[in-house]
Amino acid sequence: MTSNITPKKLKSHVFVCTNERAAGHPRGCCKSKGSEELVKLFKSEVASAGLASEVRAQKAGCLDTCEFGPSVVVYPDGVWYGPVSPGDVTEIVKSHLVEGKPVDRLRIPGK
Amino acid sequence: MTSNITPKKLKSHVFVCTNERAAGHPRGCCKSKGSEELVKLFKSEVASAGLASEVRAQKAGCLDTCEFGPSVVVYPDGVWYGPVSPGDVTEIVKSHLVEGKPVDRLRIPGK
Repeated sequence: MTSNITPKKLKSHVFVCTNERAAGHPRGCCKSKGSEELVKLFKSEVASAGLASEVRAQKAGCLDTCEFGPSVVVYPDGVWYGPVSPGDVTEIVKSHLVEGKPVDRLRIPGK
Repeated sequence: MTSNITPKKLKSHVFVCTNERAAGHPRGCCKSKGSEELVKLFKSEVASAGLASEVRAQKAGCLDTCEFGPSVVVYPDGVWYGPVSPGDVTEIVKSHLVEGKPVDRLRIPGK
């Protein structure tokens, strides 16, 4: 190991699909549905909630739930959300990440 | 919901950091250390192990463990690996994803 840096442990890890496909692809893609804006919103809402030291929100490649995008998965809970709108982010952060209650109305069925 | 597709449930979800930074950045980056090759290897090894229906391996943005890259996290277990070499992938798939035994020698300390 070449570093003395000790990474922090995460309570929750939020992955937002930012995969991009060519226009007209039959599965669509999350990037074209505004998912990069969602990443920014999750980061800012997590920070505002005082969770920056224990929650990480970040980009991910294709989560393979394109038809439900923009899609998001929260680990280690394994809770999948989609489609997520900018207005949903505050609710996910407050209910799920702060209070531990997943937002059932936004969950991807079957995941 | 605009689709009748029912996504599959995942037993394990492998995220490989493929973040890229400019050459010379003090934290380095996983892409420059060959992480895109790791994504391909994970996908092929997962398929070869017959796990394609229950394990997904994919790209992720920065996992914020740059100093230990190429870095990989396996959820829902929350097991972090790094640095991962191409030769380590078969062992992670066989030991961790097939047999359920994380590869302790490759774990990122403190995560």
